[in-house]
Amino acid sequence: MTTTNGIFITLEGGDGAGKTTHLMKLADKLREMGKEVVIVREPGGTRIGEKIRNILLDNENDEMTARTELFLYEAARSQIVAEVIKPALDKGKVVLCDRFFDSTVCYQGYGRGLDVDEIKKANLFTTDGLKPDRTVIIFTDTVENSIYRATKNDGADRIEAEGEAFQKKVWNGFLELAKQEPGRIRLVNLQPTKDETFKLVFDAVQDLF
Amino acid sequence: MTTTNGIFITLEGGDGAGKTTHLMKLADKLREMGKEVVIVREPGGTRIGEKIRNILLDNENDEMTARTELFLYEAARSQIVAEVIKPALDKGKVVLCDRFFDSTVCYQGYGRGLDVDEIKKANLFTTDGLKPDRTVIIFTDTVENSIYRATKNDGADRIEAEGEAFQKKVWNGFLELAKQEPGRIRLVNLQPTKDETFKLVFDAVQDLF
Repeated sequence: MTTTNGIFITLEGGDGAGKTTHLMKLADKLREMGKEVVIVREPGGTRIGEKIRNILLDNENDEMTARTELFLYEAARSQIVAEVIKPALDKGKVVLCDRFFDSTVCYQGYGRGLDVDEIKKANLFTTDGLKPDRTVIIFTDTVENSIYRATKNDGADRIEAEGEAFQKKVWNGFLELAKQEPGRIRLVNLQPTKDETFKLVFDAVQDLF
Repeated sequence: MTTTNGIFITLEGGDGAGKTTHLMKLADKLREMGKEVVIVREPGGTRIGEKIRNILLDNENDEMTARTELFLYEAARSQIVAEVIKPALDKGKVVLCDRFFDSTVCYQGYGRGLDVDEIKKANLFTTDGLKPDRTVIIFTDTVENSIYRATKNDGADRIEAEGEAFQKKVWNGFLELAKQEPGRIRLVNLQPTKDETFKLVFDAVQDLF
């Protein structure tokens, strides 16, 4: 990846951990600091990506193989990297992404059992070498609690509806990645209040600014 | 890949070379010989694959990046391999496929300039190691003629509409692959009549039966 002036931050964590809320709060805070901020979400965030997202999250598509799922995520990702993320970084903006390629390693690799190293290679091929400058994983103090939050939701999509054993494997994947890349990846414990959690999220990225 | 009892044959070649006609003729001939034959096409051939095909071939999606295109083909492919091709091979059937992963190497690699070795690795990951037993490439006696056939069609889809320089790179890719894997890949020259061409197509696979 060529160097860019921008800063690329991704938020990860189980469904129900409050990722999106904290992404929005982080955007507000950075804008107050005078930064130009672009928020994107995965999968989707482009016209083509949204079409792919519809296939991915449709509960009807329950015959989808793990590999098909992986490649659909990669397809949506390469589109948003080329159309949105790289151009924004090249202009010196801050890009905040709600899930990125670590989710693919954890959901399709640790969760569904595809080869983790193969997925990491596919990830870097997809982004043409681009990696987040910082990745913040928000997790609840017990895995069980996090799983409860993820599975209690009504209207769960195809991925959310996977159930507890799957969610546990995914969580263990996130913890494993955090160990492997302590420089890039920071874990944040969910706190009693949103403001307290957000303080930790901001602490985890502050050195970049 | 685990060994199977079936035989897996793919047909490749530029658009307009008569692939589909010869695939049908080959199926007829093999059925006359008492074989059970399954015909599939790429991309598509499954419920999820057809949805992916629609995204791939829609002329509206002209902002699609080469990587997105690659991963959409791989996604459709892993689905058809798992749902259709492997189960049929496991039952000892003959599977005839109208385009397979060599097209991805030639169109997205040689044609669009993505790394050919990376694509080959992605291909084998997609199929979990499955390769065709034989691949027949039908080509016209001059590349120019083949390009003419491909580009003169009305109602060309997004890939077909790419034009002459692109088609030339794709063709050179097919010729390169044929040199690299002479055991698996056989070139067949388009002949003055369909029957004559088909004779060569059948000669190219007969040793498998």
